[in-house]
Amino acid sequence: MRQMLLAAAAASLVLPAHADEKAPIPSPGEIAAAAPAGDWVAIAPSDLLVMDLTPDAKGKPRRVVIQLMPPPFSQGWISNIRKLAAARWWDGTSVNRVQDNYVAQWGDATEKKALPNGLVAVPEGEYVRSYAPAMFSKVWTYGAPGDAIKPIYPSPPASSPVTSYVDPYAKGYAFAGGFPFAMTIKFDPNAGSLVRRPETVWPIHCYGAVGVGRNMSPDTGSGAELYAVIGHAPRHLDRNIAVVGRVISGIEHLSSLPRGTGDLGFYEDAAERVPIASIRLATDLTAAEQPKFEYLSTDSDSFARYADARANRRDPFFITPAGGADICNIPVPIRPASAK
Amino acid sequence: MRQMLLAAAAASLVLPAHADEKAPIPSPGEIAAAAPAGDWVAIAPSDLLVMDLTPDAKGKPRRVVIQLMPPPFSQGWISNIRKLAAARWWDGTSVNRVQDNYVAQWGDATEKKALPNGLVAVPEGEYVRSYAPAMFSKVWTYGAPGDAIKPIYPSPPASSPVTSYVDPYAKGYAFAGGFPFAMTIKFDPNAGSLVRRPETVWPIHCYGAVGVGRNMSPDTGSGAELYAVIGHAPRHLDRNIAVVGRVISGIEHLSSLPRGTGDLGFYEDAAERVPIASIRLATDLTAAEQPKFEYLSTDSDSFARYADARANRRDPFFITPAGGADICNIPVPIRPASAK
Repeated sequence: MRQMLLAAAAASLVLPAHADEKAPIPSPGEIAAAAPAGDWVAIAPSDLLVMDLTPDAKGKPRRVVIQLMPPPFSQGWISNIRKLAAARWWDGTSVNRVQDNYVAQWGDATEKKALPNGLVAVPEGEYVRSYAPAMFSKVWTYGAPGDAIKPIYPSPPASSPVTSYVDPYAKGYAFAGGFPFAMTIKFDPNAGSLVRRPETVWPIHCYGAVGVGRNMSPDTGSGAELYAVIGHAPRHLDRNIAVVGRVISGIEHLSSLPRGTGDLGFYEDAAERVPIASIRLATDLTAAEQPKFEYLSTDSDSFARYADARANRRDPFFITPAGGADICNIPVPIRPASAK
Repeated sequence: MRQMLLAAAAASLVLPAHADEKAPIPSPGEIAAAAPAGDWVAIAPSDLLVMDLTPDAKGKPRRVVIQLMPPPFSQGWISNIRKLAAARWWDGTSVNRVQDNYVAQWGDATEKKALPNGLVAVPEGEYVRSYAPAMFSKVWTYGAPGDAIKPIYPSPPASSPVTSYVDPYAKGYAFAGGFPFAMTIKFDPNAGSLVRRPETVWPIHCYGAVGVGRNMSPDTGSGAELYAVIGHAPRHLDRNIAVVGRVISGIEHLSSLPRGTGDLGFYEDAAERVPIASIRLATDLTAAEQPKFEYLSTDSDSFARYADARANRRDPFFITPAGGADICNIPVPIRPASAK
């Protein structure tokens, strides 16, 4: 049993409640699974990028599905990515670098392939956006999540049971469109010493995040060279590289690839590269071919309860709830739409 | 170039300084590489567990080296692990579960193999230890790192350039013996309202951490069933499962294994399991066979500068230093001793 029960700690099997509890306390996964259909949001095919690697050694297909970032974030790079996919530019390129606990990176290994016309050069200022209230229904700051901006300070005392959502990389964060974002939070001198306002907002590098390779500043990359995070969140890349989306299905086809033995995980032998058969927007596939996914609305009460359960695991395997969680350890639940 | 430069963001290549800088600003890797030999600490062979998987499909050896946790942490489980290795108990067992962004887990798939005599049952109280000043030379709390306990509150204002080391999972943390630890920090009513003291301390689940599978509480596991973290730090497992060490070499042999397609990443077909040829304490290998590693002393000024650079990347690729880092994004530098 020990294997299954360690497993249960992560994957939220339905397990009996503790004897001393009146009723089972649901795990995060159980809370998401029990969410009403109305709490799930369908992802538009126009926001899905479908990457098919060539089949593996056993002939099994390897499809990776990427959800593109919603407006107003990273839209310049995303418009380039749509053009590159429409031009079938990635077909015949490859995954060229897999660095353990960091990224899997793909594009044109020769770095000589001509780019399609009409790509835009996006300024560095686009790594962040000014906060607008319409962007997010809830902003979480130091302290507990809430419908309104909560005072960041004073923080709860060390003895407080209040869940901690502190983040060493930002003073506040929020979820929107199924994505996590971090933000600066600034004092509002007109609204009392404890009132803070979000200032700038940016998408972050959690597991599965897809970013845009670039040259040295002020270059910001075109979007032709992409990577997916396959390790602990490299949040130091936030605001330094464009995040354009995240893998929502099939990341194991990238994360389980052999690590490159060259510097930085590049494959030393061209034969080691993993060929990309095609990358398409789902809207360029036939209706039958289009993958269909949905995410748990981050504005829903179900998500709030899910996030609280991620930070305070009370399902039977656990004996000491953490009392907090980092934003990358609160992955937004995503499932095939057919699961409805 | 864009591939190499994105790569540089992670792996700290030596790169020319910005034109507007007087001298190159070293990356974290450069700071560690430049540390004097005296800042590096040899890891005793008696603290190294050497796991050899059977060679891969191309006949290449697959060696995973694990550094065991130093006293006083998790010593009951570690004494069991030493007995299991001495009894060659794991030889012929296998890696049975690989769950993406979570763990690779090994042990006896049949769960019927008799355990050696003399294993101890360790109480749950051993998941944490009471803090003793001798354990750590430096404790980092909310705020900046320091030689002494720093007040946790008031926290720096949002506009402060002070590096943030906040952790949603604990009020303080420290490094010792090359390992990261988290701790509760308690008010000291005898020492003024801003003085806090560490209370309990525990090892944490960062990438590569090795833990002990267990049944439901109060079982704590024997140590025969082990897992290594191969994804974003599952800190919610801290204080709920024993952490006994971490992989210091060869984790790619676990993290790049095919993900299991069964529930929780278990291999559905026994043929998918990855056989373990042997697991030995390094002291049971010949001197010639013993791996030799050293870590950058976490008490050294070199490590303090390395950690600061992890939290504030100023090397040329970066344009916006994060201003903070989570403890699992400050991996302790480890290298083969031959690198000296």
